[in-house]
Amino acid sequence: MTERLTTAERQAALQTLGGWRETEGREAISRTFTFRDFNEAFGFMTRVALIAEKSDHHPEWRNVYKTVEVVLATHDAGGITRRDIALAEAMNAIAAQLGAA
Amino acid sequence: MTERLTTAERQAALQTLGGWRETEGREAISRTFTFRDFNEAFGFMTRVALIAEKSDHHPEWRNVYKTVEVVLATHDAGGITRRDIALAEAMNAIAAQLGAA
Repeated sequence: MTERLTTAERQAALQTLGGWRETEGREAISRTFTFRDFNEAFGFMTRVALIAEKSDHHPEWRNVYKTVEVVLATHDAGGITRRDIALAEAMNAIAAQLGAA
Repeated sequence: MTERLTTAERQAALQTLGGWRETEGREAISRTFTFRDFNEAFGFMTRVALIAEKSDHHPEWRNVYKTVEVVLATHDAGGITRRDIALAEAMNAIAAQLGAA
């Protein structure tokens, strides 16, 4: 099983992950992505969904028109693992291609 | 503009909409769909996204693995309109095909 990151590891990882922060009230990381419209927001979600399914690691996410709020955590590990950091990095890369804020 | 339903119209529409209820604390309708897995949940969302985009009427929704929580309202009308009922009906039809609970 992928191991839960220590506080120091988590903070180091967040330093390199633009836009992500620790989620209030639980051990998870969050980011809100804002796109130009629903087409872009759902296009982003679709690309991420394929990655999530392939790696069997899925986000919690909420979409309202052009925004996508994401929370990542590894339930089996009871916290944040490298798998969350990897998925966050993949999301940032896709969002950057789409010109998200 | 599509007109906001009256309380009586809203309640009549909800009678025929299996699984939907009035959203607590705001004038909107909600349903949580539960699928077998992420593949089905996101497949559902993808079909609904195409309908939403075509009709220019979009849901607020949250996906966690195999569940999709939906809230529908018509922001321009300040409440629930026929457009929300139509989207809810379309969601129910797609979910039923997929065998969702």
